[in-house]
Formats: sequence, structure tokens, C-alpha cells
Amino acid sequence: MYNFKNDYSEGAHPSILKRLMETNLVQQQGYGEDEYSAKAKEFIKQRVNNPEASIYFVSGGTQTNLLVISTLLKAHEAVISARTGHIFSHETGAIEATGHRVITIDTSDGKIGPLGIEKVLSEYSLRPHVVKPKMVYISNSTEIGTIYGKDELAALAEFCESHDLLLFLDGARLAQALTAENNDLTLADVARLTDVFYIGGTKNGALLGEAIVFNKPDLAPEFDYVLKQKGALLAKGRVLGIQFLELFKDDLYFELGRHANRMAMKLSVALKKKGYSFLTDSMTNQIFPILPNELIARLSKKYLFYEWCVIDDGHSAIRLITSWSTDEKAVDRFIEDLSIS
Amino acid sequence: MYNFKNDYSEGAHPSILKRLMETNLVQQQGYGEDEYSAKAKEFIKQRVNNPEASIYFVSGGTQTNLLVISTLLKAHEAVISARTGHIFSHETGAIEATGHRVITIDTSDGKIGPLGIEKVLSEYSLRPHVVKPKMVYISNSTEIGTIYGKDELAALAEFCESHDLLLFLDGARLAQALTAENNDLTLADVARLTDVFYIGGTKNGALLGEAIVFNKPDLAPEFDYVLKQKGALLAKGRVLGIQFLELFKDDLYFELGRHANRMAMKLSVALKKKGYSFLTDSMTNQIFPILPNELIARLSKKYLFYEWCVIDDGHSAIRLITSWSTDEKAVDRFIEDLSIS
Amino acid sequence: MYNFKNDYSEGAHPSILKRLMETNLVQQQGYGEDEYSAKAKEFIKQRVNNPEASIYFVSGGTQTNLLVISTLLKAHEAVISARTGHIFSHETGAIEATGHRVITIDTSDGKIGPLGIEKVLSEYSLRPHVVKPKMVYISNSTEIGTIYGKDELAALAEFCESHDLLLFLDGARLAQALTAENNDLTLADVARLTDVFYIGGTKNGALLGEAIVFNKPDLAPEFDYVLKQKGALLAKGRVLGIQFLELFKDDLYFELGRHANRMAMKLSVALKKKGYSFLTDSMTNQIFPILPNELIARLSKKYLFYEWCVIDDGHSAIRLITSWSTDEKAVDRFIEDLSIS
Amino acid sequence: MYNFKNDYSEGAHPSILKRLMETNLVQQQGYGEDEYSAKAKEFIKQRVNNPEASIYFVSGGTQTNLLVISTLLKAHEAVISARTGHIFSHETGAIEATGHRVITIDTSDGKIGPLGIEKVLSEYSLRPHVVKPKMVYISNSTEIGTIYGKDELAALAEFCESHDLLLFLDGARLAQALTAENNDLTLADVARLTDVFYIGGTKNGALLGEAIVFNKPDLAPEFDYVLKQKGALLAKGRVLGIQFLELFKDDLYFELGRHANRMAMKLSVALKKKGYSFLTDSMTNQIFPILPNELIARLSKKYLFYEWCVIDDGHSAIRLITSWSTDEKAVDRFIEDLSIS
Repeated sequence: MYNFKNDYSEGAHPSILKRLMETNLVQQQGYGEDEYSAKAKEFIKQRVNNPEASIYFVSGGTQTNLLVISTLLKAHEAVISARTGHIFSHETGAIEATGHRVITIDTSDGKIGPLGIEKVLSEYSLRPHVVKPKMVYISNSTEIGTIYGKDELAALAEFCESHDLLLFLDGARLAQALTAENNDLTLADVARLTDVFYIGGTKNGALLGEAIVFNKPDLAPEFDYVLKQKGALLAKGRVLGIQFLELFKDDLYFELGRHANRMAMKLSVALKKKGYSFLTDSMTNQIFPILPNELIARLSKKYLFYEWCVIDDGHSAIRLITSWSTDEKAVDRFIEDLSIS
Repeated sequence: MYNFKNDYSEGAHPSILKRLMETNLVQQQGYGEDEYSAKAKEFIKQRVNNPEASIYFVSGGTQTNLLVISTLLKAHEAVISARTGHIFSHETGAIEATGHRVITIDTSDGKIGPLGIEKVLSEYSLRPHVVKPKMVYISNSTEIGTIYGKDELAALAEFCESHDLLLFLDGARLAQALTAENNDLTLADVARLTDVFYIGGTKNGALLGEAIVFNKPDLAPEFDYVLKQKGALLAKGRVLGIQFLELFKDDLYFELGRHANRMAMKLSVALKKKGYSFLTDSMTNQIFPILPNELIARLSKKYLFYEWCVIDDGHSAIRLITSWSTDEKAVDRFIEDLSIS
Repeated sequence: MYNFKNDYSEGAHPSILKRLMETNLVQQQGYGEDEYSAKAKEFIKQRVNNPEASIYFVSGGTQTNLLVISTLLKAHEAVISARTGHIFSHETGAIEATGHRVITIDTSDGKIGPLGIEKVLSEYSLRPHVVKPKMVYISNSTEIGTIYGKDELAALAEFCESHDLLLFLDGARLAQALTAENNDLTLADVARLTDVFYIGGTKNGALLGEAIVFNKPDLAPEFDYVLKQKGALLAKGRVLGIQFLELFKDDLYFELGRHANRMAMKLSVALKKKGYSFLTDSMTNQIFPILPNELIARLSKKYLFYEWCVIDDGHSAIRLITSWSTDEKAVDRFIEDLSIS
Repeated sequence: MYNFKNDYSEGAHPSILKRLMETNLVQQQGYGEDEYSAKAKEFIKQRVNNPEASIYFVSGGTQTNLLVISTLLKAHEAVISARTGHIFSHETGAIEATGHRVITIDTSDGKIGPLGIEKVLSEYSLRPHVVKPKMVYISNSTEIGTIYGKDELAALAEFCESHDLLLFLDGARLAQALTAENNDLTLADVARLTDVFYIGGTKNGALLGEAIVFNKPDLAPEFDYVLKQKGALLAKGRVLGIQFLELFKDDLYFELGRHANRMAMKLSVALKKKGYSFLTDSMTNQIFPILPNELIARLSKKYLFYEWCVIDDGHSAIRLITSWSTDEKAVDRFIEDLSIS
């Protein structure tokens, strides 16, 4: 059985493991004060083109989201998200557990724009009987594989700024977004256009780890306290630092994203050739083909994937995810298996 | 400079890294549903002699403490801890941040007994104007290196049970406690005498990781939800599972604790020979010798350690910590350096 | 200007004020331990036909909702509400502020039934990545004036019980619901069919005050602690006890609800005679007639009311609320003013 | 039995009830937007000599404390209090329930000074492993009857300002403090020297109600949201407004405090004449005489009071509290009863 169910089925990219071994017995300060973390932060500051950025490494995406959102919002403030947004759909109420409502917007493409936000602002105007929308949360790539274009993100950023809203971008799959064929954003653009975002490591070749980037460090000058308080500060911060060092010292981070996308696009092209349509318009590593149920049944004997939703009596959409480690041979086999009857 | 400042200055025991490499590309389910985690839990259940135990792997000690305590306490309930207890002294109010008071007991040896708890219960009796003490938190070994004997722990357990108090043992340094020369507890004893405890990995050779053991699984039948909600559920749970598998498939966990203790005792014996006394009575890997300030100044040029507290005009106590990876040669050099004038 | 904007524009029913004066200097225990509160609880237990009920008096509806919901839910559990439900629409995220998601169901009549809940249960099934729905919150009368029939409530109760869901009824306007012409529920029915509910005082003649009734006292045996912790325990609990004593020693509570409804129905009949339709089918003290904008403009010079929503270019729905203290002469004047052109 | 147990045994001062009756049927806006609240706030702004002050009326002291403290502190910040402080000793962990540690200082007189705070700051310096002390909470009068002099409060205020600490004064018994014989503070002094404080109504003649005064309104510009979210915003805000209007339109507030003190001092003088000493040096309405146990036993047959603590085998301290409504005849009888053998 080959696993197309997610992009965290394997361990880490071999270069990362190698670096962990090489540095293993070098003594370092704890709690993120190690030299590897410091160096990795320098690399990232260069890539985001912001020497003033504040960067923190943490273990996972839900942790990141709850740390950032709960730190930046006051008690009565709320965050706006697409209904498909990870913080609303797959994090067990992590944001509400920190005291804040997630206000959702229904979308067809998983993306949020000024119009949707304006409607929320109008619905949430009866001060003080309603929460105050204060932050917009977006994912890039989104939970359904779509990405933001530079114009879209710029318009959103402008709208947020003019409406005193913070813009937070969840980059669990940022590598895949920024290396998609249809992408026109750079990492520096993302940094310039958002207040805070994170660079996902877990889903792009790290054992674990996300890099939170506050583009405006005044937003959370005492974030270190919060990391510790919420149990997010690893004693051996080096574990995170070394991984991001390896991912960003050269272009490994982007190479891995590119591979994941290439594998997905290979599947996608083959599926389209067979005449299948897709639930969403994705050029990243998550694709949602709509297939006949018999084919799904047959494929599921050899491949693991997620059955996403029922389309009609005879068809369903499935989710196929590729990753930095997806074996092209498995992709080829899958494509062959499409043809067998 | 050799670092005696803590037991998390290095990476992981080489066997652990080796296993991470060997298993790296084997595809596994995410979120702790991997085979390595399952196998590691089996090993631990055997060691704690409780096939019914519920075991969860998380990243760090503060995370563990806040997860366990906030899950087991109701809103108006509080936890009792020694004033030196990690949850009170070094976790940035992590427990209060989940809504619960930490009621402290002053101790000389870092340990809690029935008498101290009885005093708390009497002080907190004016229902409903005070919180309700409901849990006792202890550390073994304690934050100042001392350990609980079997009689002590049994007496505490009996007191807690008869007073409807939960007993939670923080085992960040449980390996060191259970392998100390003066120890008479087994891992199975700890499991039998507490409601819940954790087995520390971070401070005993893992990159990161603690194993939470609910000896009475009814206490938290839906703990998995809470792990996810608080950002503690790693997508690649295999990272934790593989490490505990390696630590517990044979006796590695105890061997590493024993080495740490042996290094500390070597230092301790040498310091005693020189006539120095100690702030606490520790036979584990944290020792607190009281030294002349000039000696401290001299040593601090070659070794990193924590200056713990001032004793008098001419003397201070320092903290020396050894670990699974402490190089015996560094210990020998330190001992030699004690004699040079 | 006569105020039809809400049912809390005046003080208290004169009998309540009279009783406050008569008892004013009688010394009593504080914090709800006074004799008046005890007696009022006895009266309510008789009316709900449950000698085992646990009753607590608090100041307001939002306070009640957050106390009950946060006490009965565990960290990872959520409450289901109509989208129009007060906890979602008008309480400033009070429930989320205690850590819990409010899962909403879109409805046309403000009421929840088994079908809507089943859909939620199916959407929230991916343990542990989603919250666990555990409670159903309903209002009777609802925020748009509708009420539950006995069959409806019984079906809901049965569904909840068979799906391990708690049923909580917000009775901010319970008097108006139970005295509506189309009502077939008794207070004892409400108590029998829900796990917990509250009897609203603020919107039915009290200065302030709601009575929380736990029909199954085991649900929250230590609720007194929580009241104090959340700032809901009045030092002079007598203020609440005396008011509920007066409301329930005879039938005052129901008389006041009946008056409010009669005034609304008088308005309703007159509006229907004029040919106006209504946004919702209400026989309680909140009605939502759809009127021409010119008429609304004219009426708003003499009456205060809430413009609820735009219907089309020429029409809007307004909300008219009557209360225990609505002056029938004002109602008559309003009706007359409908005819003037 | 006459009750000297607390200062909330009766209802409200008759003038307050009279005003509630007179205004009862005047229609008003809800949620604190009524004219009485507005007028009462004007009166208070004049008395505190700060036209910019932001004032909010809420129901009780614990509610006030948790609202103010949780609004002004960030997640990782803590409040410093005397160990006898109400927030630590008698509020069921209300502050911790909002996520913040209460750091305590042991005192003999219930008061905090710069020295005590400095010690705390030094103990809480290991960023980010400890919470950050950010607010100082004091009570005036204190929970043991003592008061702050102008010099003391000024020194404290200066220390707080220079150390970036907020100063919050709990004025549950502020009337009694400001009318004590040994007092040299005015209400305007209190406002000038603190960041925020509250004027207690419940313990000085109101049915319920405290007035929160933000002397620096920038501290909490959106406090209205928080009031609603935490269930503290009464629909009939007039109930609070009318009471404070009556207390502050003339000098009623201070007259009531003065009466309470006078009654206590009459008891105090008589007790001193009999040769009894006191646990604390109080010139306000709470006194703590140390009496022979037989006398306590005899008095307790005719009077309710709190047995505070055991002094020695034969003696205990009791707490006698007088109030705005204490009957001087009861005081005289108590004094007579001291002499009977």
C-alpha cells in the first residue's frame, strides 16, 4: 500500500537527519538559545528581506495557530477564517479554547477576499453585544490546494490595513504554494504583505517544526513568555534550529516543495487525460479528483488516500497528497492503475 | 568551556538517532497512530506492569504538566505543589494559564508529605470562597535532586486516596531517581502508587519527548482530543514513538539515568573529600555544593554551571548537572581543578 | 416616545419593590444563604415538580449561559445552538471566552430539531481533530418569538438522551413562552424534558435575576464554587431571593408573561387586520411585522423599536417588544397611528 | 441574635430604595445606557476630580477584580497581592481562573510597600521561565481593617510607575477607609495615585454595585465588550446607576462609611477600656479584638461574629464588623454584655 493520504507519512529529509547526527554532541544552550537556531533565523530574515523580523520555532501547526492568535487578540476580539480554514475545520476548537471565536466565511475556493470580510464586519457591528473581528486568517496553499496570487494578497493586505485588521497567513504548506506553477509570490512578498505568518516545516521535510515570522516585531515583543507558558518551548530548541538551518541554508525548502508539486501535477495531468474533473483548482500537492466509485474502490486496495466527499450516486471526490518524499515510481504505478479495467 | 548547566545540552543518544535514520522512509499513519508508538506503548505497559495503562507521547515537560493538570481538574479545583515544584517555579504560570491555582508548600527537601497537605486542606476549607484542593503534584527526582522512598510514596498515595486527592508525579528526571543509589522504588511501584505520572525523555537522552502514563485510564478517556486542542499532537508522532521504543526496548532508559548519576556522585565524592558541604541531600544528577566564591569564580572560567544562591559573604551554592552524555573526562578535569590554587 | 424596543426598559413589578422595602432591615446571611432565597427555591421546586432540583439565582442571562455551559462541558466539548441563539448572536463570544465552540445550525424559525443535530454530529466525527458536540442549547421562547410545543421538546429530549447530549433551555422569556396561546408546555414539563434550564426574571418583572434549575443535581454538585469564581455570587443574595419569592409565591410570574403576550397579540391582530405580514410566526411578546418604510419612518417619531432587517426596496421588518409593564394605552395609540396617513 | 458578621446583612439604605421606587416606571435604555448611570458617572467624575475618567458599574467585588485584572494583564503577566488580599484569600481562584498567577507577599498589616514588591521582582526575573509581575493589587481599607496613608500610597504609586507596574486599588470598603479618623486621603487622591480603582457599593449601603474607575481611560478603551462577555453587563443598568446616583449626589456615601466606623470605634474604645488588645490596628469598620474564650462563648449566644483565629489556649481573636445600618443600641448592648459575668 502506498500512502497518498498526507505529506507527513515519512520522517525527515536525509540532509536534516545527517545534520542532526553531525551536531549531536556539540553542547548548546537550551530553550532556543542555541547557535543553530540563531543561524537559521538569520537565513530566514534574509529570505524574507526583513532584518527586523522576529522569528520563533515551534513544533506544529495547531500550536502555532493558537499561540499567534491568542497572543495577538484581546479577550473580546475574534478571527475571521474560511470555513475550510484549518483553525476552524481540523484543530479541535484550539482557538476557541484560548477564548476567541472563529468567524467563518463560506467559500468555494478556500480563499478570503475583501467582500467576504466586509460582510462579516457589518454583521458584527452591534458593540458591545458581539465580538470584535480583529484578525484575518488565511492559508497558502489553502486546505483545498488553491493559492493566493500577488494581486489578491496585496488587495487583502490593503483592506486589512485600512480596516485595522491583522493579517495572519498559515504557511503549513507555504513551500508548495510558492513553488506552484501558477504562483507569482515570493517569500519576501508574503512577509511584506502580512503581519505575521509561518513557514511550515512538518509538511515539507522536517521531523517537526514551524517557523513563526512576526514581520512587525512590536506585535508580540514578549512572545517568548507565551511560548514557555503554553508548553511550546522545547528544552532542546536545537532540534528545530538545525532543521530550519538545513532547509534554508540553500534552497532545500523550495526544492522539496517543488518535488511535491511535480508529483501531484503528474497525477493531475494523467487524471485529466482520462477525462476526470476535479473538485478544486489546485496546482499544489493536494488534488481532489472526482472519480467513479468502482475506480476508487479498486485504487484503495493499493493506495491509501482520503475519500473527501460524495459527488453523486456513482462518483466521489478523493484527496491525493504528495510530498517531498513521494516516490515517482509510485506515482507512475498509480497512473498505470488508472487504466487497468 | 564544559557545560554542567543542564541535562539537555546535547542532542540524543546515538542509538536513537540511528533508529530514526533506519526507519526514516517507512510510511506510517500520522498523529501518533504509527506502529512505533504502538510498540513503544506496549513496552512501557510491561515495565509499569499495567496492561490497562493509557499512554500518550508529548514534546515536553511543561506541556505535559499543563495537559494533565488542566484535564483532570474542574474549574474550581487546585493543585498542591512544593514551592520548588517545577509547575510553580519554572513554567511561566502555565498551570494558572489553564485556570487553576497552584497552592504551594514550603519545604526544605523539595518533597511533600501528608502533614503539609493537611495544613493546606485546613486553610482551604471555607467553601465556596476558596478553591478546592484536588490534586497533589510531586517530582521524582525533585528539582533539588532529592528522591522519594517507597515508604514515603506509599504514605502519600494512601493519604491522597483517603482524602479524594489525585496524585500526579512529574518524572522529568524519573530515570535518575529510579537509578539513584538510595532508591528503592521501581517503575511499577511508581505506576501503582500514583494516578498519573510521566516518564521524562528530554532530560534522559531523547531529542524531545515525555510519556504520560494514566494508571487509571478512566481518568481521561478523551485525552486525545485535548492533546490536539492544545497543540501537543505531533503530525509525525513517529518521532516520539521511535525514541521511546529505543529507550524501552532494552534497558537503555535506566542505563542513561545511571550514567548521569554516576558522574554526579563522582563529583560529589570529590567535593566532600575537599570538605565542602551541600545545600541538599542529592544522590541524583543534580548536586548543589557550597563553595568559596573565589573557587566559583575560578571554575566558572572553564565550566558552565548555575549559581544557585548566596550562602554567606564568602560562599555560594552552585548547581552542577550531569547527564546521559556527560563525558567522564570532563568530570575528572573538574575534580582536578578543585585542587589547583 | 414610547419604548417597544425591549422588555427591560422599566424597573421591577411594584410588588417586588414593596417586598424589598418590607424586608430591608431584616438581617440575613450573605451569599445566597438567606431565608428568602431558601423559600423561593422551595416554591420553584414545587412548580417544577422536582424536590431534588438544584437551584441557583444569578444576575443575568449571559452570566447564566456561560456558567452553565462552561461547567457542564469538558475542554474539548462544544455546544450546538441555532444561529439566532442568544449565545451565538448577542453575547460577545461569552461561550467561546470560556473555551468552547458554539456550533450553529441555520433555521428559519429559531428552533432546533433532531435532523439539524444529526447533521452536526456527522460533520463533527473526525476524532480527535474536531470538537465533540456534547450539549444542545435552545431558547424558549426563541429570539424570534417562536415557541416549542410539547411534542417537539419531547422529541428533542429523546434524541439528546439517546445521543448522550445534554439539553439546556434558555428561559430568558420562559414566562412568555409558557403563557402563549399556542403553548402546551408546563413548567414541570420543561423541567422533566431538559437537563438544566433557567427561569428568566430580568425580562419578566424583576430588577435583575435568573433562576438556574438543574433538574439532575449530579450534573454540577459543586456549582457554588463556580458561581463565586466567576463573580456571579452576590453578597446580598437576598436581592435575588426576594424577587423570585414574590414572583413565585403566587402566580405573578405567569400573570406578567401573560400581560406581555396580550399586548403583543393586540398589536399583532391590528397589524394583520391592516394586511401586514410577519417575518416570524410569534404568539409571544416579540413580533416582527413587515411594514412599508414610510410607515416605519412615521412610527419611529413616536415609538422606539428595532429595525430588524430589510425585506425589499420598500419594506423592512421591525421588532416590537412588549413587557409585563407595557401600558395598554400606548398599544392602543400605536394601533391608531397605523391608520393615520 | 444581632449580626456583627459582615456589612452586607441588610438591604439598601432607605434613600436608595426610595429612589428606585420613584423612578421605577420611567422607561430607559438598557445595558448601562440609562440617564441615571450617566448622571451618576458625572457625579463621580467630579468627586475624583478627573473629567477623563472611564467609569463602569458592575454587581460585585469579585466580578470587578476579575474583570479589571484580566483585562489589563497579558497572558504571561501576574498580579502582586498581600497574602491577605481578597483576590488571593476569598475569591475562589477567580484571578487564576482568568489565567493569571496571584503572587503573594506576607505582611503583618495587610499592606504592600515597595520593599515587598522589589523582592518579588527579583524572584521573578528568569525570563521567560517565570511570569512577569505587571500589576500591584491593594485594598483600602484592607481585609484586616488597616488603611493606607497619603505618603504610603504616594510612595507606592511612584514605585509602581518607575517599575512599569499598574496599581489597582480594591475599594470594597473605600468609604470606611476615607472616613476613618486616621485617614488623610481624599477620593481625588486615590484617583490621582492609582491607575484604576473601584468604589464599593455593596458593603456601604447599596443592594449591589461597585463603580470601577479607570483614571487612565486608555488602559481599557474597549472594556464595554469585556463586561458583556463575562456576564457583568446588567440589562437593567439603571439598577446600579440609580444607587450610585443616590450615594454620590450628596455626601451619603461618606456618611454611611462614617457611621460604620463610628460604631466600630465605640466597640473598640469599650473593649480597650476593658483591657483587651487587638490583632490589627484598625480604625475602620472591621475590628479584631482578642478575647478570653469564655467571653467569646457567652457573646456568641447573643451576637453573630466570626471567630478569626486562635491566639493561645485561653484566647482567640474575633472579627466584629459594623456597617451603615448597624443599630447603635445593639452596639450599646454588646458593650454592656462585656461587663456581665
